[in-house]
Amino acid sequence: MHFLVFIIIDKGVAMKIALECFSCFLKQAVEAAEMSTESETMRREILREVLKESLKISFDRTPVHMGMIIHRIVREKTKNPDPYANLKKKYNARALELYPYMKELVGYSKEKLVTAVKLAIAGNILDFGIGGYAKDFGVKEIIDEVLEQPFAVDNYQNFRKALSKADSILYLADNTGEIVFDRVLIEEIPDYKKRITLVVKESPIINDATLEDAEAVGLADQVRVINSGLEAPGTIIDHCSEDFLDALHSADMIISKGQGNYEGLSDLSLPIFFLLKAKCKVIARDLDVKVGDLILKQDSKS
Amino acid sequence: MHFLVFIIIDKGVAMKIALECFSCFLKQAVEAAEMSTESETMRREILREVLKESLKISFDRTPVHMGMIIHRIVREKTKNPDPYANLKKKYNARALELYPYMKELVGYSKEKLVTAVKLAIAGNILDFGIGGYAKDFGVKEIIDEVLEQPFAVDNYQNFRKALSKADSILYLADNTGEIVFDRVLIEEIPDYKKRITLVVKESPIINDATLEDAEAVGLADQVRVINSGLEAPGTIIDHCSEDFLDALHSADMIISKGQGNYEGLSDLSLPIFFLLKAKCKVIARDLDVKVGDLILKQDSKS
Repeated sequence: MHFLVFIIIDKGVAMKIALECFSCFLKQAVEAAEMSTESETMRREILREVLKESLKISFDRTPVHMGMIIHRIVREKTKNPDPYANLKKKYNARALELYPYMKELVGYSKEKLVTAVKLAIAGNILDFGIGGYAKDFGVKEIIDEVLEQPFAVDNYQNFRKALSKADSILYLADNTGEIVFDRVLIEEIPDYKKRITLVVKESPIINDATLEDAEAVGLADQVRVINSGLEAPGTIIDHCSEDFLDALHSADMIISKGQGNYEGLSDLSLPIFFLLKAKCKVIARDLDVKVGDLILKQDSKS
Repeated sequence: MHFLVFIIIDKGVAMKIALECFSCFLKQAVEAAEMSTESETMRREILREVLKESLKISFDRTPVHMGMIIHRIVREKTKNPDPYANLKKKYNARALELYPYMKELVGYSKEKLVTAVKLAIAGNILDFGIGGYAKDFGVKEIIDEVLEQPFAVDNYQNFRKALSKADSILYLADNTGEIVFDRVLIEEIPDYKKRITLVVKESPIINDATLEDAEAVGLADQVRVINSGLEAPGTIIDHCSEDFLDALHSADMIISKGQGNYEGLSDLSLPIFFLLKAKCKVIARDLDVKVGDLILKQDSKS
């Protein structure tokens, strides 16, 4: 098993922390602190710890790694294991309300798979992690906008081909709420019940989807659900469980949602497709696109 | 002289650093670092120093104080005394192009002084200091919008009265570019050549206006110009020169532009009026207004 791990991480040139990330780290820390405790003293302690960790973190790490550290500090200081619990429920519920609308959109669409892929990316906007991006809940407007928007990185044809051949497909979920949108895409994939394994986070981290959320939105009944062994808002390859790494290595095709998974898995030798919206300058630069662009990117090595 | 200083700072409850300020500090630091040096190593060193200072700074300080520290670090590390020099020239030049348009707006206005005050506040949008706020240069659109917008805090009648009585008026400028807008307001004040003293920063800090800028936009010929003895992006009362404090204390009326001056001078016993646009959550909370609101606030003690 360790041999496999070695092969996977050997070529790892994942998206690394940039100077611009630090203001975002502090914004996240303060938002999480405010959500987790009413004590100003404790909030300040959290800020201090995050500042200290910001001084220690290596620029060879991914932003997601720092996200893991930040939210661990918040949990440990406040003893609140899941500060976003209520908001996550709200997001799942709101997204579920939109589920019939999205099914209709796909149903009426001439290119059902493209529409479903775009919806899955539209769902990626529901994110608390990255500073201030589309927190308002005009999701219907976002959906309509995304459906009109072309892919800035467009490997859709290869995506479709890979999908038609793969016996086993690993689908890496990102956020709560968003997984309802993922459900719409998953249901457009033939034989999804047999072929797809959904990967969620092991334990709560920001608004990332866990098994509980997969159950709440009706996905856990339809596909196998595993977790990555992580409590990070994305994937950190050398912190994942061996079971997950084994699944990652043996899958014929991987569909990776969101920025946090991209950060940790880009430039690995995997048959992977990244579906995301570029939400900040750092990832836009990495992908050579503009902030707000839609991405359906096949890993160059896949 | 020290006795005067004591009287002024005695009641000081200036706007203090809030948790949300820290992400903004790092954003400013990184932007200034990127503008000042091409060396990634040096940029990282600047970030490290700013993180260390963020750990040390007292929450009893104002955001402006941290701004002073940040930009001192950038200058010392990069040996670049004025990284914003070119941009400042550009902003002055661009604002000067709008000067005839603004004079016309005032000329045609029924309430010339109100229009001039609003223009002076519209100019306050030209700021690099506060994260990402209106950096694009659609200034004409901003002007039109601001002229339509009511004051959220409206002490205009008292402002007008104070203006009619004051023998000596101290006008605290804020930014480059913006001082062209200030010129429009100043020129609407009767006897401005005799009554007004313009206060600029002693040396370059971000895009704040200095004597050179007052000269560049034609204000130095028209009114007396002094400096605050500061290299901070605002006013820090216990770091100002005694000459400035003397002027501050002896003026019949003080017109203070922008957030940085408000942060340091709010809640002092001065006959002061603050003209600004609330550019971030922290100041909006302090003023009990919304981000983006126009403020013409008389100090409650004046």
